[in-house]
Amino acid sequence: MTDKPKQTSPSRRQFLAGAAAVGAGAVTGRPAEAATPDPLITEVQDWASGLGDGVDATPYGLPIEHEADVVRRNVEWLTADTISSINFTPIHALDGTITPQGCAFERHHSGAIELRKEDYRLMINGLVDTPLVFTYADLERFPRENRVYFCECAANSGMEWAGAQLNGAQFTHGMIHNMEYSGVPLRTLLEEAGVNPAGKWIYVEGADASSNGRSIPLEKAMDDVLVAFKANGEALRKEHGYPVRLVVPGWEGNMWIKWLRRVEVMDQPVESREETSKYTDTLADGTSRKWTWEMDAKSVVTSPSPQSPIKHGTGPLVITGLAWSGRGAITGVDVSVDGGKSWTEARLAAPGTDKALTRFYLDTNWDGSEMLLQSRARDASGYVQPTKAQLREVRGLNSIYHNNAIQTWWVKASGEAENVEVS
Amino acid sequence: MTDKPKQTSPSRRQFLAGAAAVGAGAVTGRPAEAATPDPLITEVQDWASGLGDGVDATPYGLPIEHEADVVRRNVEWLTADTISSINFTPIHALDGTITPQGCAFERHHSGAIELRKEDYRLMINGLVDTPLVFTYADLERFPRENRVYFCECAANSGMEWAGAQLNGAQFTHGMIHNMEYSGVPLRTLLEEAGVNPAGKWIYVEGADASSNGRSIPLEKAMDDVLVAFKANGEALRKEHGYPVRLVVPGWEGNMWIKWLRRVEVMDQPVESREETSKYTDTLADGTSRKWTWEMDAKSVVTSPSPQSPIKHGTGPLVITGLAWSGRGAITGVDVSVDGGKSWTEARLAAPGTDKALTRFYLDTNWDGSEMLLQSRARDASGYVQPTKAQLREVRGLNSIYHNNAIQTWWVKASGEAENVEVS
Repeated sequence: MTDKPKQTSPSRRQFLAGAAAVGAGAVTGRPAEAATPDPLITEVQDWASGLGDGVDATPYGLPIEHEADVVRRNVEWLTADTISSINFTPIHALDGTITPQGCAFERHHSGAIELRKEDYRLMINGLVDTPLVFTYADLERFPRENRVYFCECAANSGMEWAGAQLNGAQFTHGMIHNMEYSGVPLRTLLEEAGVNPAGKWIYVEGADASSNGRSIPLEKAMDDVLVAFKANGEALRKEHGYPVRLVVPGWEGNMWIKWLRRVEVMDQPVESREETSKYTDTLADGTSRKWTWEMDAKSVVTSPSPQSPIKHGTGPLVITGLAWSGRGAITGVDVSVDGGKSWTEARLAAPGTDKALTRFYLDTNWDGSEMLLQSRARDASGYVQPTKAQLREVRGLNSIYHNNAIQTWWVKASGEAENVEVS
Repeated sequence: MTDKPKQTSPSRRQFLAGAAAVGAGAVTGRPAEAATPDPLITEVQDWASGLGDGVDATPYGLPIEHEADVVRRNVEWLTADTISSINFTPIHALDGTITPQGCAFERHHSGAIELRKEDYRLMINGLVDTPLVFTYADLERFPRENRVYFCECAANSGMEWAGAQLNGAQFTHGMIHNMEYSGVPLRTLLEEAGVNPAGKWIYVEGADASSNGRSIPLEKAMDDVLVAFKANGEALRKEHGYPVRLVVPGWEGNMWIKWLRRVEVMDQPVESREETSKYTDTLADGTSRKWTWEMDAKSVVTSPSPQSPIKHGTGPLVITGLAWSGRGAITGVDVSVDGGKSWTEARLAAPGTDKALTRFYLDTNWDGSEMLLQSRARDASGYVQPTKAQLREVRGLNSIYHNNAIQTWWVKASGEAENVEVS
């Protein structure tokens, strides 16, 4: 320690109001604090004088009690019953890109069923040379792939079509998770059964009472779809389709059939309930857009946000959020603090990968002014995330699904934030 | 469905003993089964006629009860007390590369303490221009990075030096995990304090009673070390150092100080207990190698293995495992079924990334013969994982730490596997 402390980055240090310098000659924002001994440093604390938990305390661990608020949450008024409902990933409190399974959103049509590996069967039938049935053990014998993909419910942000409604990124954008999946390419299983030239579609269904049947073009089925049995390294959770779910990269989450029991090769789509009365986009004139599977490029600032206000006052501020696109990799994210009048390119934590969440940061200084905070994603196809006004020009106000418009948080001088409409 | 099923890949299909064809004319390995209706397909099951759990069943979920054996385990005779002990990641049952925090190995020197974010302080002192103290909230204001890294205990496989001992990949190689960390580069904080030219080392310590103090060369500290507060997106778990731990990529796990409380810049190393009496490599003549921080390239077959035997008989078999190197990316993994006489290059699930786990697969056919199954990792520096004999030539039999020798599983005709010594 020198007698005369040299300031290598005084401008930054002045902003760091909370970073107290210790010892004489301190020149940071709050030198007064340094003169007052901090008992958390100067006194031996309980945790430094006693022993903690042994290694057999939790064979499978859970988050510490102080993180008890970082959990999935549902919105009671959204659905009549939790059995056919959804809950939301606490994206406002997460960082990085991987979503732990324990807090990754769930959507069920007839509840999360329990199905043992031993009772699992997957049938491939229809326009194939040889209809086949696979057990779970059979699936494990095929060549596997590992890929990180996002899964987004088509209804994510759907409640925001007509105006700002839910006050938190968890609720406006939390119908999304991003995991590393291990599984067998569906293509491999279809080739094992032998697809007839007349086959143009597949119809996939789950083992639960809803079956949640969906039609998927054969071209997609033979491309990057996985029959997955692991997520983030371990078995799928009950609520995510244990033991086997379909992974349909970049496409809406309800096609990611859980408890996958059957794949039928067909010459035309079924036009099932979930792809006609549900999961189509109602336009202004009352007609519907159908086959809107691909999730458009989208992003959201996760902090600051209504559930993650600024508590530290002015000075250095990390603005962060998530971006994704069903069309491929995210190539850039712009951030605006003035409701879209001007934009600054954010830093991507890592280059975007295909159909996976990308984390972005804007390292900035906040002068205490109000902000109308927005983010705007761009993807490898050249697509740029639209404003709400642009999206409504095409689809009106009646849609439920596929709202990928730019989101605005009004950050007040107090640091609190609120969901507002800036079209 | 055609009348005369065409076989597109009969050779493969014949091996798939469990894949029953349905309907008449089936030509797979077990046509007899196809003639017997499978009630799991032909009868409506309970889970398809009732409702499952609603979305508010588990705000933070745990693995399904059927996966209750996929947990961390300790070995009672290894240590006198669980407070200063270790448990092991169930790598034999995982796939992909991400390790869920809930089953990621723990190593404590005085138990896992509980430390609230509000009570957290990080001091940087010693040969710096301005000693500084950061609160948790301060740390969140610095630019963050996200990186996936493995963390391996120096003692991983240490019990195997003198011969095959523990019967399972979880126990021989389970002192490893691989997570996506979010944190502030330590370099940023050191630059904030201003490192004096005389500073050549840092000494880092934790807030627990052991403090687990370790010296780290300044060059490494200024390179890729992170002061991390998230792993796999969410807060660190209590057992992994909540709220803040050091991440020292590629270097032995005991330097990844948990509950990080102090970083002192020094002109020389401290030569603390944990880097002199512990965590040095005892050689044949009783002397020790010191400063052996970097983890050499290593790999292990996780399946088949003693805890993950072959249960499906002959035919298609997926051999899989993990490889890693503290020196950079894994460039290749070779697999041998004859105890190292011949090698076949395995398929990497994704290109190796710097100092992170890489998953490898060898998709093969098993004829039912016994195998002496091995894997051999190669890294970007050109280093090739050694045999036990090669390693012992240099270090003898008395070492505890840094055993990165090739591991052998003896897979018997029954499909059961056993840890054996092939030097």
